[in-house]
Amino acid sequence: MKATIITIGDEILIGQIIDSNSAWMGKELNKIGVSVYEIISIGDDKDHILSAFAKAEQQSDIVLVTGGLGPTKDDITKTTICDYFDDTLVQNKDVLEHIRAMFAKYVKDAIVPANEMQSMVPSKALILNNAYGTAPGMWIEKNDTIFIYMPGVPFEMKALMTNEVLPRLRKTEGLPYIYHRTILTAGQGESTIATRIEQWEDNLPVTVKLAYLPSLGSVRLRLSSTGMNKDEVIKKVDENVSALYQLIQDIIIGESNDESMAQQVAGLLKKAGLTLAVAESCTGGQIAQQLTEHAGASAFFMGASVTYATQSKIDVLDVDPEVIKRYTVVSEQVAMAMATGAREKFHADIAVSTTGNAGPSKGDSDADVGTVFIGIATATNCFAIKFMMGNHRERVIQKTVNKSFELLQKEIFKLQTN
Amino acid sequence: MKATIITIGDEILIGQIIDSNSAWMGKELNKIGVSVYEIISIGDDKDHILSAFAKAEQQSDIVLVTGGLGPTKDDITKTTICDYFDDTLVQNKDVLEHIRAMFAKYVKDAIVPANEMQSMVPSKALILNNAYGTAPGMWIEKNDTIFIYMPGVPFEMKALMTNEVLPRLRKTEGLPYIYHRTILTAGQGESTIATRIEQWEDNLPVTVKLAYLPSLGSVRLRLSSTGMNKDEVIKKVDENVSALYQLIQDIIIGESNDESMAQQVAGLLKKAGLTLAVAESCTGGQIAQQLTEHAGASAFFMGASVTYATQSKIDVLDVDPEVIKRYTVVSEQVAMAMATGAREKFHADIAVSTTGNAGPSKGDSDADVGTVFIGIATATNCFAIKFMMGNHRERVIQKTVNKSFELLQKEIFKLQTN
Repeated sequence: MKATIITIGDEILIGQIIDSNSAWMGKELNKIGVSVYEIISIGDDKDHILSAFAKAEQQSDIVLVTGGLGPTKDDITKTTICDYFDDTLVQNKDVLEHIRAMFAKYVKDAIVPANEMQSMVPSKALILNNAYGTAPGMWIEKNDTIFIYMPGVPFEMKALMTNEVLPRLRKTEGLPYIYHRTILTAGQGESTIATRIEQWEDNLPVTVKLAYLPSLGSVRLRLSSTGMNKDEVIKKVDENVSALYQLIQDIIIGESNDESMAQQVAGLLKKAGLTLAVAESCTGGQIAQQLTEHAGASAFFMGASVTYATQSKIDVLDVDPEVIKRYTVVSEQVAMAMATGAREKFHADIAVSTTGNAGPSKGDSDADVGTVFIGIATATNCFAIKFMMGNHRERVIQKTVNKSFELLQKEIFKLQTN
Repeated sequence: MKATIITIGDEILIGQIIDSNSAWMGKELNKIGVSVYEIISIGDDKDHILSAFAKAEQQSDIVLVTGGLGPTKDDITKTTICDYFDDTLVQNKDVLEHIRAMFAKYVKDAIVPANEMQSMVPSKALILNNAYGTAPGMWIEKNDTIFIYMPGVPFEMKALMTNEVLPRLRKTEGLPYIYHRTILTAGQGESTIATRIEQWEDNLPVTVKLAYLPSLGSVRLRLSSTGMNKDEVIKKVDENVSALYQLIQDIIIGESNDESMAQQVAGLLKKAGLTLAVAESCTGGQIAQQLTEHAGASAFFMGASVTYATQSKIDVLDVDPEVIKRYTVVSEQVAMAMATGAREKFHADIAVSTTGNAGPSKGDSDADVGTVFIGIATATNCFAIKFMMGNHRERVIQKTVNKSFELLQKEIFKLQTN
């Protein structure tokens, strides 16, 4: 089963918003055995939309379309649907009721005709309930291709997919089984790994696909396969992963189900029953933000201090001003003092700290742009490590956040085996 | 001038990474008068890549392609380019030198043949220097269409665009002028605004396009126009914006050049010479993270405390435990105490605080999921406001962050006029 995703809206083409919907849809479709063949973003232009529908119909079994369903004049998806399916708009009473109820409950403004117009839907469409918004989802079949229309607002789309679209697609016959395993490595580059596993890679069965996914400081190797026989698909991937482990055991640090590093650290902390505190300078709150993004953080996360100004390291984390004076604010000693301070202030089992200069210009210290110290403090251990993270601000922050999670991971393992 | 962006790589289709490159490219191309007609994401499949090249060539003047240029076997873009342009790979000495120099400087691993292979490039290509990586950019012209190939790693692509691609495109003749103005409104929904400005909208000249961009708590109205005569383009948009101001003066809160709310607050603080501190509970560090994402934050940002655990509100922000006991941790009084505590601890002119329950389950207080208090403290003023932000965790956090920036904005205006 192949899918095409079409996102409609000038705001994507001019870069006003990033299309994060498609990645989310791709991931969810994949889980139920639908592979995404193509993602296409186009503007609010009738002819272009029509030609995208036609191309998608020809190349795929399922077409998911988001955007252009709002109540204003630039939202032309619904009239274009009527053109494409040779259909007309009719009023749907349930949708009208839902819109009125939503306005009564959540909206201060009076309901206007443009809102009520959202209950006009193509007569051939099966209506999918949008729990969080006034634009309904729509499902239309044509020549063995299923077209699904949803609003582009991410949480409305996600609820529609989860509650309406995916359960219906799951019932469709002929969905194959898709299986991935993603091996995390650290310490060697993409091409070095490729050379080490060249022979193994050449002998992979054609049904097993390998992808190299390099990211800052690590390379992920993703093996995937698809087929109607679930057991066979799993067996083939697992056998080849086992052979891979033999070849590069020294650089494999784990496997991932697309969990972020923050989620992995969160999982380890919860499993070990340990609590964490964070002291951030150059990372500006990003470590805390990534740890609290997902539900359940209160089980292990005590809190963080973002001590951006030098004086705040003294006032909030009790860093000794003499230490700052002697070693400068970007130093091993200050990173250690920050971690110790955060651990004590927040009564945590383990604390991580960052201090450095992300650039573009030098700050309160004389350290070169890209110089970063990451500190770790536990009940029995305290240390800090220096890193040179390059001269690209965004990258320095990202790499420091990733490296912090990596050091935390190692320290949690150590605490558990001690 | 129309462009098509093609991103190559299975990792986008299966949702392992979000394509943020295309939005960035769209924004930059727009600034120099190139409009993006279509963005298309496809997998590492030769036939699909070839058909995407052909479609793009037919529909656009410029084709930007990212991905598939790495040193491993799943990177097939270069051989596919040779097929498409009827070309062969030849070794480029400058690229080879660059690869060897990068390895000598940055990479611990020994250089392997796969790395040196990256210096093999199509003979018809103009080579663009990739300052941050080993895969060079490439520029090939065919039948009046320019094809530009870049690696998919965001900071490598951005440097190539900035230093090589955009300066070359800017020299291309026949680029029109593109002009946008984005009006920020607050307090009314998309359809209410549409009704109020209906007549004005119907009378817009065909060359001026209007888009409604709703986001949590506000609606942006973007007017855009394009043409060869710069003065005329600007005049036409500005005239219509003036007329719009007359119609909805009461809900317009400003204009934006695609600046985020955090960037707008940062700009206001810097202009006013004021410093800021943040005390976050339910937002988990996201306010601090957004404020420090861009360079220059040290001019106004003193720091933040993410006091996730209740005890840390007492230990780190000096919130009176009696106040928590009496009013619970999600309350007006605690939000005010947090803001006051942060303002004092960080010696800031103004502080903002958040405390609430983002869900999915109840936390340390009995407050309903979605209950949030945002507090503001200045030298002369301290208050907190209660909001019900719904029951969708991600959305509760986002809305709270946005609302915090909105309240900050208003308070900074007040401080300035006092």
